[in-house]
Amino acid sequence: MSTQSASSAPQLTSPTEDDAARQYGAVLFFSDFDDPVTWGDALKENIPGLDFRVYPDVGNPDDIRHVLAWKPAPGFFEPFKNIAQVINLGAGIDLLVGRNDLPDVPISRLSDPGMIALMRSYVLFSVIRYARNIPEFEQAKRRREWQYIHPRPLHRIKVGVLGLGHLGGAVASGLAAAGFDVRGWDHADKTIDGVKTFGASKRDAFLSDVEILVNMMPHTKHTEKLIDKTVFDALPRGAKFVNASRGPVVDEPALVEALRSGHLGGATLDVFWVEPLPQDHPFWGMENVLITPHLASITVPEAAARDVAESIRRVSAGGEPLHRADTRRGY
Amino acid sequence: MSTQSASSAPQLTSPTEDDAARQYGAVLFFSDFDDPVTWGDALKENIPGLDFRVYPDVGNPDDIRHVLAWKPAPGFFEPFKNIAQVINLGAGIDLLVGRNDLPDVPISRLSDPGMIALMRSYVLFSVIRYARNIPEFEQAKRRREWQYIHPRPLHRIKVGVLGLGHLGGAVASGLAAAGFDVRGWDHADKTIDGVKTFGASKRDAFLSDVEILVNMMPHTKHTEKLIDKTVFDALPRGAKFVNASRGPVVDEPALVEALRSGHLGGATLDVFWVEPLPQDHPFWGMENVLITPHLASITVPEAAARDVAESIRRVSAGGEPLHRADTRRGY
Repeated sequence: MSTQSASSAPQLTSPTEDDAARQYGAVLFFSDFDDPVTWGDALKENIPGLDFRVYPDVGNPDDIRHVLAWKPAPGFFEPFKNIAQVINLGAGIDLLVGRNDLPDVPISRLSDPGMIALMRSYVLFSVIRYARNIPEFEQAKRRREWQYIHPRPLHRIKVGVLGLGHLGGAVASGLAAAGFDVRGWDHADKTIDGVKTFGASKRDAFLSDVEILVNMMPHTKHTEKLIDKTVFDALPRGAKFVNASRGPVVDEPALVEALRSGHLGGATLDVFWVEPLPQDHPFWGMENVLITPHLASITVPEAAARDVAESIRRVSAGGEPLHRADTRRGY
Repeated sequence: MSTQSASSAPQLTSPTEDDAARQYGAVLFFSDFDDPVTWGDALKENIPGLDFRVYPDVGNPDDIRHVLAWKPAPGFFEPFKNIAQVINLGAGIDLLVGRNDLPDVPISRLSDPGMIALMRSYVLFSVIRYARNIPEFEQAKRRREWQYIHPRPLHRIKVGVLGLGHLGGAVASGLAAAGFDVRGWDHADKTIDGVKTFGASKRDAFLSDVEILVNMMPHTKHTEKLIDKTVFDALPRGAKFVNASRGPVVDEPALVEALRSGHLGGATLDVFWVEPLPQDHPFWGMENVLITPHLASITVPEAAARDVAESIRRVSAGGEPLHRADTRRGY
C-alpha cells in the first residue's frame, strides 16, 4: 500500500496499485516451505502496489504473468496462459526443466547473500565437525572418557568440493578462508582464489587424497549417480562425505555400502533420492551418518526480493531476468 | 645442521652451531601436549644450529636461556638460574603468573595464524551447530523422524562474545564474516568491524538478547567465576553457551543448574575447573552438553616458530620478546 492511498479522495485502489497491475501483471506465489507473507511484504517494498497472489487464491488465471514457485506439482502451470517468466524459489531448477506444462519462458533461480551464507554455514559446520574429531568426542562422552586427540592444523586437512558453480564456488572459497587445504573439481575449467582446481579429466587425481568430500553438484541427467562406487573407492580409506546439493547425484546403495564397509568414515547428508527420507531407509540406523531434512540452504526473502523485483521489471519491459538458468544444461 | 657441515674439513659441530650457541644460549622445551621434534625442526629452520633441548634432557641447567613451556609443574623453573625469558606454548598464561620459582623475566605468549584458525573453527562449529538446529536433528534421527525446521537467516541470530582480546576479537570478527549478528563485551573499550561492542557497564544490556554466548575471557583473579548465575539469568530462556577459553571463568555449579532447569538450552564446553573432567562430573551425563578435551585451539609449530625465533633473537640482544604478556593483568 503506497502512502498516496492516504489522500483525501476515497478510492478502492491507489493509483500506484493500478499502475503496478497495468505495468507488471500479477505475481503468483507457490511454496509449501516459504512464507508468502514475508515474500509479499518484501516484494511490495520494492514494487509498491504489486499484485501479489498466493496459491490457491489465484483469481483470474489469465492475470498471472510471473510465477515464483518451489516444487510445483506436474500440471501446475497448465491454467496460466500468459506466463512471462518463472522464478524458482531456490537454487536447483531440476524440478522445472523437462516438464510439459510450462511454455518456453525464461526460468531463473534465486541468488542472494542470505542463501550463500546459509549454505556456507552448513558446509563449514559439517567439515569442521569432522576436521575437529567431534564424532569421536561424542562417543567418548557416552563412555565418560576424556579422550584427547591432538588437533591437526587446518591447512593440512584436504577438503574436496565437487562442483564449483554459484554455490559450490562460494563454499570452496569459504572453506579456504577458514584455513583448510581446499581442492575443487568441475566439468568446466574454474579459477577460485585459494582453491586448487582440477579439470574434468583429473577426477581420480582430485579424489585420491581428499579427506572430506563435499558434493555441490546440481542434479542433471549428466550428474545423476555421478558419485558412485568408483568415486568412493578413489577416496582414501576413512574419508568423510558431505552432500549439500541434490540426492540423485549420489548412488545411494553405493554410499550405504561404503559406509557399512568402513571405507567411508562418515557422512553428513541433507538431500536424498526420496524426501522425506523413508522411515525404513538404512541411513536412519547408521551411527556414522548425520541427517538433516533438506535445509542446508534456503532463500532469505528480504535479501532475494530486490533481485526478484528487478526481474519482474525487466521481463515486463521485454528484457531478460536476472540469474536466468540454462534449461538445456539444467542449472 | 647447516650446509657448511658438508665441507671437507672434519668437525664435530658446524660453525653455525657454535655461533648459535654463543649468541643465544640453549632453549629448553617442556610440554606433555606438543611435539618436541616438530618444534625443534621448525625453530632450527629459523635459527640454524640452535641449541634445542627437550626436558628432561636438560644438560647443564646454567646453559638454559629460553624456556618454551606448557603447564610446567610448581618448582619447574628452580634449577635454571640464567633464564632470560619464558615463552608460553599457548595463549592463556594463567599457569605462569604468581609462581615463586620464576625470576622476573619477560613472559610471552604464542600468537600464530594456525592457532587463530583453530579457535575460529571451534567456535564457528559450536555456534553454527546451534544456529542450524543440529541437536534437534540428531534427536529426530534417533526417532527416524524427518523433522523440518525452517532455518533462520544468520543475520537474525544474535551471538555474543565475552572477551574481545587477541583470540576473542578474531572469533568475533570470524562470526560476523560468517553472517551472524555479533555483539561483543569487554572490560576495555574495543572496536571490531561488524561487531556491536558494549562497554564494561553495559553487561546486562549486552546479555539480554544474546541467543548464543561465547566465553573468550582469560582466567585472571578478576575473571574467576565472572560467568555466574546472574549472567545466565540475564540471558533469554533457551540461550546456548560455548566456553572455549578457560574453565574457572565460569561458576560451574551455576552452569549445571542453568542447564538442568532448562533456562540454558545447551552448552559446548572445551574447558573445566578440573581437567581431565572427573568421571563423576554431572556434565558427562547431560544430553544437552557437548564436551571436548581442551583443544579448541593449540599452537601450530610451523606457523608459530618464526615469532619464537624472533623473540629468541630479540631477548638475546637485550630487547623485548614478541607478544609479551602483562603479568599484572594476567594475560
